[in-house]
Amino acid sequence: MPIFSRRIDHWLAQKILNAIGRAPVRIVLENGETIVPAGVSPVASVMIKDRRTLAELCIDPEVAFGDAYMDGRIQVEGDLVRLLEAVDEIWPADRRWYARLMSQTMEFWQANSLGGSRRNIQRHYDLGNEFYKLWLDKELVYTCAYFPQPSATLEEAQFAKMEHVCRKVRLQPGETVVEAGCGWGALALHMARQYGVSVRAFNISREQITFARERARREGLNGQVEFVEDDYRNITGKYDVFMSVGMLEHVDVRRYPEFGDVIHRAIGDNGRGLIHFIGRNQDASFSRWIRKRIFPGANAPCLRRALEVLEPHNFSVLDVENLRFHYAKTLEHWLERFEKSQQRVLARYDLPFVRAWRLYLAGSMAAFRAGTLQLFQVVFSGSRAPSLWWTRAPLYAATPPAVEKPQWMHVMS
Amino acid sequence: MPIFSRRIDHWLAQKILNAIGRAPVRIVLENGETIVPAGVSPVASVMIKDRRTLAELCIDPEVAFGDAYMDGRIQVEGDLVRLLEAVDEIWPADRRWYARLMSQTMEFWQANSLGGSRRNIQRHYDLGNEFYKLWLDKELVYTCAYFPQPSATLEEAQFAKMEHVCRKVRLQPGETVVEAGCGWGALALHMARQYGVSVRAFNISREQITFARERARREGLNGQVEFVEDDYRNITGKYDVFMSVGMLEHVDVRRYPEFGDVIHRAIGDNGRGLIHFIGRNQDASFSRWIRKRIFPGANAPCLRRALEVLEPHNFSVLDVENLRFHYAKTLEHWLERFEKSQQRVLARYDLPFVRAWRLYLAGSMAAFRAGTLQLFQVVFSGSRAPSLWWTRAPLYAATPPAVEKPQWMHVMS
Repeated sequence: MPIFSRRIDHWLAQKILNAIGRAPVRIVLENGETIVPAGVSPVASVMIKDRRTLAELCIDPEVAFGDAYMDGRIQVEGDLVRLLEAVDEIWPADRRWYARLMSQTMEFWQANSLGGSRRNIQRHYDLGNEFYKLWLDKELVYTCAYFPQPSATLEEAQFAKMEHVCRKVRLQPGETVVEAGCGWGALALHMARQYGVSVRAFNISREQITFARERARREGLNGQVEFVEDDYRNITGKYDVFMSVGMLEHVDVRRYPEFGDVIHRAIGDNGRGLIHFIGRNQDASFSRWIRKRIFPGANAPCLRRALEVLEPHNFSVLDVENLRFHYAKTLEHWLERFEKSQQRVLARYDLPFVRAWRLYLAGSMAAFRAGTLQLFQVVFSGSRAPSLWWTRAPLYAATPPAVEKPQWMHVMS
Repeated sequence: MPIFSRRIDHWLAQKILNAIGRAPVRIVLENGETIVPAGVSPVASVMIKDRRTLAELCIDPEVAFGDAYMDGRIQVEGDLVRLLEAVDEIWPADRRWYARLMSQTMEFWQANSLGGSRRNIQRHYDLGNEFYKLWLDKELVYTCAYFPQPSATLEEAQFAKMEHVCRKVRLQPGETVVEAGCGWGALALHMARQYGVSVRAFNISREQITFARERARREGLNGQVEFVEDDYRNITGKYDVFMSVGMLEHVDVRRYPEFGDVIHRAIGDNGRGLIHFIGRNQDASFSRWIRKRIFPGANAPCLRRALEVLEPHNFSVLDVENLRFHYAKTLEHWLERFEKSQQRVLARYDLPFVRAWRLYLAGSMAAFRAGTLQLFQVVFSGSRAPSLWWTRAPLYAATPPAVEKPQWMHVMS
């Protein structure tokens, strides 16, 4: 029944095109049939190998596209990022009942309890430091960079990001900082080296912590920076500053009050802090495909939800900056380096792995461009903390301002 | 029974002192008895004239203090602002059941419906332009100023504030702006004059609108700026930019979604905007005394609540700045000018009026210093708006940057 089966294929492809509306995409079926929405010039061709894939795309596109791309049943020719961006701009989140149910089920199984977090984090961050070295910057900073100019290199931009967050909390020599989620340790070491503070940095990725400790020793900073292989919930001690760059994404939304308790225990009413995280304009659950294949247990809250961390303890929000275009730019660099390292990645992993990571990097870049994802840096202080600044101008000064007792402040006896 | 009654007075005064804990205040009773908390050096003496006042202070301090101060049954000698600041830092909001009930009852009677808003606004802002001219800056800007340096004059700081908010939304010549709540028109005229935009500015205070229109005519800007005597809910038309400085305080929290609808109708998904408002770290109702005597229907939401305006329409929060110390400084200038104009105020109003306004200005200054009140500027854009900036650095450049097509942007065909 070749005609009949061709009709099924065509019908399924049309259903997909209806869903993505006027997205500039050419769909090519196995039999060579080509479908293009009227009046658009496609940025990419999506070749769909079989009917099973077509059907899966209709039923559960969120996971089916990624899985089929991963194992080659879908191939894309043309600009993958532009394609994903265009679809992101058009396609609303899948709110069908079974999509929501599957999302909640996934949330349950990937819950970020103490044990769950360790499993989730190790699955992603313990893939091997050699892998990340292939496409991250030299300092291995795996979070949104800050490009003073769009033309800055990734290395310059990651350095500038670390400076930016340090200036935002006005680190002063001799102060103590606790960092929740420290990656390979670049920021902790930067704070110690450039600002003369003592840092205790927490992380549950064994590979990252081992690497960071070795680096602290090599740089002679191991007296000043302590890397602790433990969960942020087990932070003990009192600090002047709380710092967390790219970890809130690994905290379940319903655990935000607990996270707030941890921060308050650490810095009390006199401290200050910064939380840097991937967020959204409106609440939505993270892509199920990303959670299935790349980041188990990940979240991206809207700003309002994220403030639930700070509000119960009377923290003052001092500054929020949205850097989503900087993350798109960061991902552009990562993706470019990743593509250049393809052969070396293939030497360790298989083709589906390479395709999955390409899709994750390209898809994230598209999401930050389209506005599906946002990047927030939130600076806050305890209710009795002295003010950090008079204006934000020193953040943009050529050299960081000398630390001084602000004369304008109202001094209580 | 003089001894017995002295005991009652003493007991009542002690109850008050217990409530305000270690606040640095000396309480002086009618009979000359003086009570000071152990181990503190008082910044002010509070003279309480009679037992009725003492009793009222115990029952409902939030309103009783202000009312008694107003009609002279309480007199303060010493630093009024320091006194109020110290009490603010110590005294939690009154959460007794009848205080909450009275607050809700007040909210009901002062609800900011279309008619209610008009009554509330006119009661405050239509007190007479001559009165406000006595203590505001020359441009009559009745919102938090921005002091590039703490030593800037009030005039400089109000000019700088207007520049700051214009830069934050990157006004470009020929664009259209709608302003919700425009006071005496200073910002609307500033935007038109300095940035070459067309402005429609809404306000329901008749005196302010009349004044603003006259000024636009005098400056020859009446072709470019239209002052509309109407409620923000009746805004019609499409604009590039939504601007609202110091009006959210007059919107009931439960009407935030409606306010968001108004903004979205005005600027759609491609526009951008700024909301500047008095907020808090945590939700609490506005002082009942302020609402009774000064600002009927006023609110100061926490940032999380304020975001309920923006989130339903998928607006992106781009930038939040907390300027509470700038409001304390602004109020310091206002209070100083107000005190200097006392005799001229007395020529039009009575002594209780002068005392009420002194307490309102001093109390607000204390609240911004203590952190009971915060000042937020929130910049946002529609979900399909082009990005406003690459970094915030141009906000702090000596001259505003030339308008250019940002080359870094990803250009969709």
